[in-house]
Amino acid sequence: MYKIAIVPGDGIGKEVMKAALHVLEALNIDLEYEFGEAGDECKEKTGEALPQKTIDIVKKADACLFGAAGETAADVIVRLRQEMELFANLRPVKSYPGTKALFNDLDFMIVRENTEGMYVGEEELSEDGNTAIAKRIITRSASERICNYAFQYAKDNNKKKVTGVHKANVLKKTDGLFKRVFYEIAEKYNAEGIEAEDFYVDATAMYLLTRPQSFEVIVTTNLFGDILSDEGAGLVGGLGMIPSANIGENGGLFEPVHGSAPDIAGEGIANPTAMLLSVVMMLNYLGEKESAKLLDKAILEVLAEAKTVTSDLGGNSNTMEMADAIKKRI
Amino acid sequence: MYKIAIVPGDGIGKEVMKAALHVLEALNIDLEYEFGEAGDECKEKTGEALPQKTIDIVKKADACLFGAAGETAADVIVRLRQEMELFANLRPVKSYPGTKALFNDLDFMIVRENTEGMYVGEEELSEDGNTAIAKRIITRSASERICNYAFQYAKDNNKKKVTGVHKANVLKKTDGLFKRVFYEIAEKYNAEGIEAEDFYVDATAMYLLTRPQSFEVIVTTNLFGDILSDEGAGLVGGLGMIPSANIGENGGLFEPVHGSAPDIAGEGIANPTAMLLSVVMMLNYLGEKESAKLLDKAILEVLAEAKTVTSDLGGNSNTMEMADAIKKRI
Ligand SMILES: CC(C)[C@H](C(=O)O)[C@@H](O)C(=O)O
Ligand SMILES: CC(C)[C@H](C(=O)O)[C@@H](O)C(=O)O
Repeated sequence: MYKIAIVPGDGIGKEVMKAALHVLEALNIDLEYEFGEAGDECKEKTGEALPQKTIDIVKKADACLFGAAGETAADVIVRLRQEMELFANLRPVKSYPGTKALFNDLDFMIVRENTEGMYVGEEELSEDGNTAIAKRIITRSASERICNYAFQYAKDNNKKKVTGVHKANVLKKTDGLFKRVFYEIAEKYNAEGIEAEDFYVDATAMYLLTRPQSFEVIVTTNLFGDILSDEGAGLVGGLGMIPSANIGENGGLFEPVHGSAPDIAGEGIANPTAMLLSVVMMLNYLGEKESAKLLDKAILEVLAEAKTVTSDLGGNSNTMEMADAIKKRI
Repeated sequence: MYKIAIVPGDGIGKEVMKAALHVLEALNIDLEYEFGEAGDECKEKTGEALPQKTIDIVKKADACLFGAAGETAADVIVRLRQEMELFANLRPVKSYPGTKALFNDLDFMIVRENTEGMYVGEEELSEDGNTAIAKRIITRSASERICNYAFQYAKDNNKKKVTGVHKANVLKKTDGLFKRVFYEIAEKYNAEGIEAEDFYVDATAMYLLTRPQSFEVIVTTNLFGDILSDEGAGLVGGLGMIPSANIGENGGLFEPVHGSAPDIAGEGIANPTAMLLSVVMMLNYLGEKESAKLLDKAILEVLAEAKTVTSDLGGNSNTMEMADAIKKRI
């Protein structure tokens, strides 16, 4: 039995979460759900975007499924990542059949540092309001932790290369440190046949378009990972397709990369794929490899068939219809 | 007569600069060149990547053509931008015929703030080497200046929309300030029929792939502009195609967005297009609209014909052959 914290959040977060819970019924695993509130609606109701009660629920669970939050997303998700030390944010860029992807042959992983960099929240605005300063903090320990994770991920998943991404020509000290640590860790894994290379973040943004097939695992700092993974989503058909895992020593939180999408919220037409693929990542994390495989296969089949899919995928099914088609395939 | 500072720099910088000077012979304008050294080779020789003498040459000139610098690029180009207050970095994303572009219908401008943000060079490494901190500085004055520039550019070039790009959900104070100023300036131009919208930088990185046609003018802070413009290059066939203008109150510096490309330097096979389009931008800046048009048309014709083009464009001409074909068309 696993305890799963369910935090649907706002907008389509709630809709794709409903789809996920529907599909999960078909899998033979014993899950106990505990629901937590967070996001804009929660703030409206309780005064807080992320009540302590929700944090406690998430902390006590074996894993958390998170939908999406609206305007308050940063206060909710960034805080959860930091409170729970979910230091590794995994964002697969993978081409699926039946999508309007620019590339149909991609399969790489972006490993994003999830606790520091530009996300430390250390900012000042001068009294006259004319100058603002934000701090970008890079530490050896967090850099070691994330680079180790990325290389170990490569090893465990039979990948042969890790690409470190930074802007050390301009951010000489912060990214100089990150780059140095990256190559220290790389050396350890070199003996195991895993290659290392590094690029500037700007060049990487271009290479993702000119030779995306060359990437296997990318490891980078927080904000660069944020930007590159959304670009990665664009490569494979949009945010509707990209799941993510936030992993720490003591927990995992799984969420679609997309947001609450106020423009389509309430219509029940959101693509549930990113959320369902996040469930696959959660099942793998819990060690339920068989269930993960079953669900992944079912999603793939429904995408490939391209009949019962949502409008962003060229179909005219709604969220629950697509989810149901996937459930039936399991 | 115009005084033009010529700073070829390193690697293919020198090669594409030679191509540019060759092509310029065909135009009927009185240019006086003064050559300046900068970059890796210069550092090797003189101990400095950017000697004061070169800065003086650039400062005295009406405009500067810059090739590319190698490892020392940041010390050369970032310093030149700051020393000369070249506050606006213009990076057109435009589809040209005959290129292996992902999209063949793009034509928008990225206006990048060029003096502050993450490029202020304020960084510290702790004594034990374990923590590094960089400052990101955003000021009202620089934000006003760049947003004004972007909206005025839109007006002058018959564009109907300006998109402000930031990460104000996480960088609440620095990008909060930038976003606030963006909408203040937007209001002034609203009466003139120019629309304003704003997106997060991560979403923008995706929209550049899922609906790039929707952009007309993008205005953003320094590092985001750096990343998004390289992504833009990827959209239209790579860095070999993208010119740029660095504009200030008292000068302009024009350079291809690509670097010194050590991998192909010395072979004479670099695509001269980005450099030649930078010359077009310079001619427009100098007010030589007719010459600019002539050169632009010649470049376009040679690209469209796709016969005398470099290997990255699917041809087998070298740099000077392609340049010569363009020169002959003028
Ligand atoms: C909502 C926002 C704070 C968040 C981030 O920047 O990390 C989101 O863009 C993401 O990528 O999960
Ligand atoms: C060389 C580097 C410092 C520079 C930058 O980051 O601005 C380059 O990438 C550019 O875009 O002109």
